[in-house]
Amino acid sequence: MIKKIEHLGIAVENIAESLKVYEKLLGTSCYKVEEVESEGVKTAFLKIGESKIELLEATNQSSPIAKFLSKKGKGIHHIAFDSSNIEEDIKRLKNEGFELIHQTPKEGADNKKIAFLHPRSTDGILVELCQDR
Amino acid sequence: MIKKIEHLGIAVENIAESLKVYEKLLGTSCYKVEEVESEGVKTAFLKIGESKIELLEATNQSSPIAKFLSKKGKGIHHIAFDSSNIEEDIKRLKNEGFELIHQTPKEGADNKKIAFLHPRSTDGILVELCQDR
Repeated sequence: MIKKIEHLGIAVENIAESLKVYEKLLGTSCYKVEEVESEGVKTAFLKIGESKIELLEATNQSSPIAKFLSKKGKGIHHIAFDSSNIEEDIKRLKNEGFELIHQTPKEGADNKKIAFLHPRSTDGILVELCQDR
Repeated sequence: MIKKIEHLGIAVENIAESLKVYEKLLGTSCYKVEEVESEGVKTAFLKIGESKIELLEATNQSSPIAKFLSKKGKGIHHIAFDSSNIEEDIKRLKNEGFELIHQTPKEGADNKKIAFLHPRSTDGILVELCQDR
């Protein structure tokens, strides 16, 4: 079951610069910076209510974030929803006709199991499911 | 003070079609459809945790949503943050150097007072502040 917006992933060019803006905007401080080498991204998290903002900076040119930035520029890259049982939600969504990029959960940032849905089945939006390990 | 993500505004071409996707994805039903004539938009809301998804369809060609769709296609149009005191947050953010599109709150959908920040001061993201009337 999908419980809440876990985070919004926002593609930025420079995390240090963007953090200054988001920290002032939200009146809160970044609580974690983490590199996910397998994805070629550096991430920074800010808490806002029950959700988070995840800033994403590319660490190499083949990173999905580098591709997104060159195609669309800075902006919202994905919405992540918190699942109470990610395996069940994957099964449910496949049965509903959604197209999963990951058929089984993989390891994500912030100590999560994650799976992405393909934007062509989600009205053009990149959607992530995630669950705490 | 900014308390939570109040909603994500998502530009769509056809609310009825997109609602089918979002209702299946989130496992919940739309609880309100509302037209905001002054903005040239029809809106539909789904609840997810403490936040909402607001689907936005243009009702005329000069609507900001029609312009967004022709420039960028379907996708996330803005992030709205819930403010405990919108007048105070406008003042605070102006003092911090943010550029407000609305200097004073105006009437928005879903029974809110709202004000938008200019994306050039918010790292390229269109940000809305809102507070219940």
